[in-house]
Amino acid sequence: MAYFENVNKIQYEGAKSNNPFAFKFYNPEEKINGKTMEEFLRFGVAYWHTFTAGGTDPFGSATAIRNWDKYTGMDLAKARVEAAFEFFGKLGVPYFCFHDVDIAPEGDTLAESNKNQDTIVAMIKDYMKDSEVKLLWNTANNFTNPRFVHGAASSNNADVFAYAAAKVKKQLEIGKELGGENFVFWGGREGYESLLNTDLKLEQDNLGRFFQLAVDYAKEIGFDAQFLIEPKPKEPTTHQYDFDVATTIGFLRTYGLENDFKLNIEANHATLAGHTFEHELRWARINGMLGSVDANQGDPLLGWDTDEFPTDLYSTTLAMYEIIKNGGLGTGGLNFDAKIRRGSFEQDDLFHAHIAGMDAFAIGTKVANKLIEDKVFDSFVEERYASYTTGIGKDIVDGKATFTSLEDHALKIGEVTPNKSGRVESIKATINKYLVTSLAE
Amino acid sequence: MAYFENVNKIQYEGAKSNNPFAFKFYNPEEKINGKTMEEFLRFGVAYWHTFTAGGTDPFGSATAIRNWDKYTGMDLAKARVEAAFEFFGKLGVPYFCFHDVDIAPEGDTLAESNKNQDTIVAMIKDYMKDSEVKLLWNTANNFTNPRFVHGAASSNNADVFAYAAAKVKKQLEIGKELGGENFVFWGGREGYESLLNTDLKLEQDNLGRFFQLAVDYAKEIGFDAQFLIEPKPKEPTTHQYDFDVATTIGFLRTYGLENDFKLNIEANHATLAGHTFEHELRWARINGMLGSVDANQGDPLLGWDTDEFPTDLYSTTLAMYEIIKNGGLGTGGLNFDAKIRRGSFEQDDLFHAHIAGMDAFAIGTKVANKLIEDKVFDSFVEERYASYTTGIGKDIVDGKATFTSLEDHALKIGEVTPNKSGRVESIKATINKYLVTSLAE
Amino acid sequence: MAYFENVNKIQYEGAKSNNPFAFKFYNPEEKINGKTMEEFLRFGVAYWHTFTAGGTDPFGSATAIRNWDKYTGMDLAKARVEAAFEFFGKLGVPYFCFHDVDIAPEGDTLAESNKNQDTIVAMIKDYMKDSEVKLLWNTANNFTNPRFVHGAASSNNADVFAYAAAKVKKQLEIGKELGGENFVFWGGREGYESLLNTDLKLEQDNLGRFFQLAVDYAKEIGFDAQFLIEPKPKEPTTHQYDFDVATTIGFLRTYGLENDFKLNIEANHATLAGHTFEHELRWARINGMLGSVDANQGDPLLGWDTDEFPTDLYSTTLAMYEIIKNGGLGTGGLNFDAKIRRGSFEQDDLFHAHIAGMDAFAIGTKVANKLIEDKVFDSFVEERYASYTTGIGKDIVDGKATFTSLEDHALKIGEVTPNKSGRVESIKATINKYLVTSLAE
Amino acid sequence: MAYFENVNKIQYEGAKSNNPFAFKFYNPEEKINGKTMEEFLRFGVAYWHTFTAGGTDPFGSATAIRNWDKYTGMDLAKARVEAAFEFFGKLGVPYFCFHDVDIAPEGDTLAESNKNQDTIVAMIKDYMKDSEVKLLWNTANNFTNPRFVHGAASSNNADVFAYAAAKVKKQLEIGKELGGENFVFWGGREGYESLLNTDLKLEQDNLGRFFQLAVDYAKEIGFDAQFLIEPKPKEPTTHQYDFDVATTIGFLRTYGLENDFKLNIEANHATLAGHTFEHELRWARINGMLGSVDANQGDPLLGWDTDEFPTDLYSTTLAMYEIIKNGGLGTGGLNFDAKIRRGSFEQDDLFHAHIAGMDAFAIGTKVANKLIEDKVFDSFVEERYASYTTGIGKDIVDGKATFTSLEDHALKIGEVTPNKSGRVESIKATINKYLVTSLAE
Repeated sequence: MAYFENVNKIQYEGAKSNNPFAFKFYNPEEKINGKTMEEFLRFGVAYWHTFTAGGTDPFGSATAIRNWDKYTGMDLAKARVEAAFEFFGKLGVPYFCFHDVDIAPEGDTLAESNKNQDTIVAMIKDYMKDSEVKLLWNTANNFTNPRFVHGAASSNNADVFAYAAAKVKKQLEIGKELGGENFVFWGGREGYESLLNTDLKLEQDNLGRFFQLAVDYAKEIGFDAQFLIEPKPKEPTTHQYDFDVATTIGFLRTYGLENDFKLNIEANHATLAGHTFEHELRWARINGMLGSVDANQGDPLLGWDTDEFPTDLYSTTLAMYEIIKNGGLGTGGLNFDAKIRRGSFEQDDLFHAHIAGMDAFAIGTKVANKLIEDKVFDSFVEERYASYTTGIGKDIVDGKATFTSLEDHALKIGEVTPNKSGRVESIKATINKYLVTSLAE
Repeated sequence: MAYFENVNKIQYEGAKSNNPFAFKFYNPEEKINGKTMEEFLRFGVAYWHTFTAGGTDPFGSATAIRNWDKYTGMDLAKARVEAAFEFFGKLGVPYFCFHDVDIAPEGDTLAESNKNQDTIVAMIKDYMKDSEVKLLWNTANNFTNPRFVHGAASSNNADVFAYAAAKVKKQLEIGKELGGENFVFWGGREGYESLLNTDLKLEQDNLGRFFQLAVDYAKEIGFDAQFLIEPKPKEPTTHQYDFDVATTIGFLRTYGLENDFKLNIEANHATLAGHTFEHELRWARINGMLGSVDANQGDPLLGWDTDEFPTDLYSTTLAMYEIIKNGGLGTGGLNFDAKIRRGSFEQDDLFHAHIAGMDAFAIGTKVANKLIEDKVFDSFVEERYASYTTGIGKDIVDGKATFTSLEDHALKIGEVTPNKSGRVESIKATINKYLVTSLAE
Repeated sequence: MAYFENVNKIQYEGAKSNNPFAFKFYNPEEKINGKTMEEFLRFGVAYWHTFTAGGTDPFGSATAIRNWDKYTGMDLAKARVEAAFEFFGKLGVPYFCFHDVDIAPEGDTLAESNKNQDTIVAMIKDYMKDSEVKLLWNTANNFTNPRFVHGAASSNNADVFAYAAAKVKKQLEIGKELGGENFVFWGGREGYESLLNTDLKLEQDNLGRFFQLAVDYAKEIGFDAQFLIEPKPKEPTTHQYDFDVATTIGFLRTYGLENDFKLNIEANHATLAGHTFEHELRWARINGMLGSVDANQGDPLLGWDTDEFPTDLYSTTLAMYEIIKNGGLGTGGLNFDAKIRRGSFEQDDLFHAHIAGMDAFAIGTKVANKLIEDKVFDSFVEERYASYTTGIGKDIVDGKATFTSLEDHALKIGEVTPNKSGRVESIKATINKYLVTSLAE
Repeated sequence: MAYFENVNKIQYEGAKSNNPFAFKFYNPEEKINGKTMEEFLRFGVAYWHTFTAGGTDPFGSATAIRNWDKYTGMDLAKARVEAAFEFFGKLGVPYFCFHDVDIAPEGDTLAESNKNQDTIVAMIKDYMKDSEVKLLWNTANNFTNPRFVHGAASSNNADVFAYAAAKVKKQLEIGKELGGENFVFWGGREGYESLLNTDLKLEQDNLGRFFQLAVDYAKEIGFDAQFLIEPKPKEPTTHQYDFDVATTIGFLRTYGLENDFKLNIEANHATLAGHTFEHELRWARINGMLGSVDANQGDPLLGWDTDEFPTDLYSTTLAMYEIIKNGGLGTGGLNFDAKIRRGSFEQDDLFHAHIAGMDAFAIGTKVANKLIEDKVFDSFVEERYASYTTGIGKDIVDGKATFTSLEDHALKIGEVTPNKSGRVESIKATINKYLVTSLAE
């Protein structure tokens, strides 16, 4: 317990508290719909942003001040594990997530990298015994190293495909070893920069093959975690293949993978693709593909992935609305794929930021739950589409209508006058009312 | 009182009310810092969106159902005046705003248009006697008519410059007649589509001349309203000259007009220019140029001016923060330059939308005021910049430092280590806490 | 021959010509790869932009000066047909396209609208006999009329679904009558504005049902045109269902419609979705879904559908590169879904703009063809992916590799060093060289 | 001559050459308007992108393979100087540009950093004696080091202001020592992330003070280089103060600095601000503020600074159009602030990319020059604005018109009918014609 000496276990103190190291809204034991908030929200800490990254940006070097930065190499990796478990415990989150390179440095060869992994994974496993924290998911980072410059599974170089496969294989084994509940694929380099030097069809096919091989291997070793693909439209690659939820579902169906994968949906990736976060969640939900969430937010005026901690209460409310409607996230969770701003370089900011995000989702959960309990939007929607429950509407839904019967109907009515406002302004006012009053009760 | 028969005067009923025709948060008589909310907020209704427009969009014809649409020509213009004053009264707003063409149709000649203006202005003046509503500002629409296709004051055609001047002249006279407190210029066609057919220098100079002539004429007739320019970066014109607050201030200084104008800042125009609404307000404020506000909001995922009713509480809070810090808006106000969605085509939606906007600003005002009262950000800022109050910092501010003295200082300290987080995550959590708790008290 | 008196048949005069009413690059009879340019390019004129629209924008009324604007009602519709066929003949395009409401006004009832359609369709059929112009495609406008305010096939109102079906039914019959080679669906209102008032699943299902019914009816009447869906991400609707090519393919596969539809790809819709035009063409091509093209371009700095005439030679070259690689467009063509700028309000501009577009595609065709003939990019790509033709790469492609065999391979090689630049700068320089020199030869 | 052994001096070989290490269009000795192309274009190589950077991006580590990367520390700095001068000579560019930290590593203290600078500057000076290359500009990097996390001249910490001043002081001295013709300020951290922790007014004032102190010191030491500010709207900072040309001119006028500064305009920064490159050049030009150019380009579909090598011929043509109209750039030049893509990691790509850029500007120059010689746009513009040379138009320009005289004129004419198309489509076709034919002559 050496890295965050000034911080004690974070407790719920309620909205009146001015203690910056306390939850004001997230009360893990509070019950909502028969589940505790903790069971509901299944928060995860992202190892990379919190323990590995240092606050660099394309124009600036690292700013973060971390007590473990006096170490290097494997010693640094070990210190991070110690710091991580201290942090998990003090924050009281049930889950964490990592890429292979977050937890241990790469060696000069794949064999050496794997050995480094083994050392740290053994240490993590040991720490997990004395901790309540579990592995939400792990993944292979197949994008940072120069070898992946032209892609991993979609590389033009078959050796790179093989190397990427070996890295995923190792992580599948580690996922099994650590009891990971999910396994994520994010294809940061699976895409192209110029169509003119790219064999798009081969790259797509290879991507399909890669995923199938991963599914096969997981079955082979009896690792039954939920597989997840995380869509992102661009950055670092100019055009990335898993553009958004709809594109990724289309891809999975094309390659017959739709029953083996769900989606890990990130808020900031949604907005970069021109969608809202809740749009992506809904699209996945109605396709039975909502698996897990990378909880963060972007800046709508900036065109890159800012990965901010989620604090926008509209976004957390509408996200939780979809998640509650989905009956929760199953094995998935809310992973804070979020980094503190470069100017928030102190260790304390790590706590402030996670508390901000957890409180924001706690508020969102309570507001969304109340909106659902009160059937505010459900009643409106039910009435709005009522015409499909009888007459010509029922015929349409039941597959009994034809263009000829529909034309007969249309000729009979002559003209249709819109008779029902969509009430969007009213809907927004209702959300505001719930937002500023739900917590008072 | 024939147009909105089903609606009575809107009253404040508090947050628990489920009456859609009631204010839940805007209580005009409630006092904040010694002023009533009504004095503080100075809401205005935009004649064009509320009484003239019909819900067209580039791909769709009008959808609005309005009781006055059975009339045409000048009868329609008169019916709109009746409807408008009924609406103002029932909503209880202190102000309204209009363009010339909103209130009366154009005739075949300028003389005829002016005659139509006179008829309706006389009627409006009459109605104002029995009403408490006042004119926040009027303006000339120098963008809709085909004659302005290549600009108004920046047209390539001197006849168009003259015509535009005549229209502004008329509105200055009308503004005086109706006691308008401000006068607005929005240059929807003052810009260019292609640099290659454009004499940019002449167009800028002519724009400067036009504004000077307007100032001269107002003085000539003794009309002392505050002149306002409303920046917008694009749409309808590809590049508009009054891009944003900073550009417009630069323009005013170049042409020696900085003492005769302030700015009318619109939220959606800010975001189209790549800024937040509060950025534009702050930039105007520190330059002494914050005049009035067009209260609306855009959709961050859409690239055009959606002019939605303002409901985002972050935006209303941060806007009111700037406005309170500015000591209010002086003669300015919060004009709802906002249109109901095309799908909200019922008359009732006009009330719902204005109530949504007024409640959103009421909430924003209370939250912002509390943040200021508690000196949450002021104390943080004061401490953050404390180094400029003593030593080398004071020398800098006092103009006593030189590059040589600064280098001496820097060499002495050797290196500077950042020692203060900017605490952005914490700031956002604080706003959330105030947002969901301020109204409970 | 009364509407464009000052213009004679447009001829090819070569690049040295200064005649604004002549082609400088489009020589219909010139052969490329054994086909004439005319056969290759299959240009179509869009009835709506060229004969129906007037240059309105959200802030301005119509500016277009048209010789047929002295007429109204059905007389105007007839005058437009006359003008259209004069224009087609003088421009020498082989195709035209229309929506129902472009060619004839809607009546007070569906029956009356259909009667108006019949009158004008008979006239068009008559004109087609004496003309070489053919119908590339027709479609039903199910987005302008207020009845479609909440959608057509995805409306919440079953009567609207029926009305939309009746309109499509009529156009299928007209398409058959006029020998239309394709039939297009663009869902301008098939989408949502707020998730909270939307039953997304029902709307998607209904959309699927609607397309199936259209397919069924076309078969019933023996209309064998290629069905096309035209993706667009947004505008007018905040979120449109046919977001882009990948989304639309995913949708078609979900509803088992993938064999009945191809895609009509518009350049400006591509860029609004965050893709290049050529990306969308390639994506459709490798999925066997490239049907037809709406040839226009957007302004990359504006966030709405500007529908400009296509003049960007990079875009026409890269588009033609995909189209030539696709073996042409089959029954599809290059429809100028493009409108002259509001400031280009003279009739002559209609010719200038179409000539600009046709010349731009002629240049693009010649440059793309030369790039292909010289195998500039093909050789580079072939070499770049050579590793998939032998060894481990061939195993991957042939389905013989497993994660275990791939790991073995990766362990053997130890590390992969990138050894081949993607040469993007060089590729761009090559395109430039071809662009400025290809026509000199 | 050890670093680029495989490349000889790049020669002009004409468009037919297939030699990737030859200019196809840039012929330094070819005369245009009495000046050689070399005199005209004044190309500069950016030290940072070409010799210092390694191809990292936010998700990937360095990929560049460089022959000097076997060295470290000051040895690496020296090797880079050797490589740089070899590269300058082989490429045949007349200028280079650098930041302090590009040429020598920072030490533990300012004094040590200065010493490193002195060592390398002496070496550079020595190399310059045997070379024809000159220093276009140098600058201080006041954005990468953590000390600048909250700004440099606009930092909240006065020590940082002092440190930044000391760094600029040193570079002013070095600029003088090396005969630099300009001196640039780019304020990558001069901006804010959150308004709520920012004293915007103090930061703006301090920025003004800083620039004045720099001007003062340059005068003190007799360094008469042209001072340049380089605008950029955002990235790395959320909002940067020198947003665009108009904003920066406004700032300079506010602080009385408009006679001491011109602007260094970067293409990619222009597009990030929502402008075209040529817009920013024109805006600076008509204000007498066009100083120098950072020649690169962005990707219109990506929201960050991609800094690509300039290859878009529309952009180079329209940029050169403005520059020729400006009578050249004076002491300024065309600095390739451009980086090869991460996938173009070979040393050869450095040559390919610079050749691509130089050829693109050579083509742009020839096309622009021909457009100007033929008075294509000048005649059109002259005629378009002719109404301002007589009658009421002349009165307006001469300051003789008043709103009253203008109204008299407008009443007399009654209505204005637009009578002149802006001919934008025709203009675009003309550019295309010149683009594909100008080099054939």
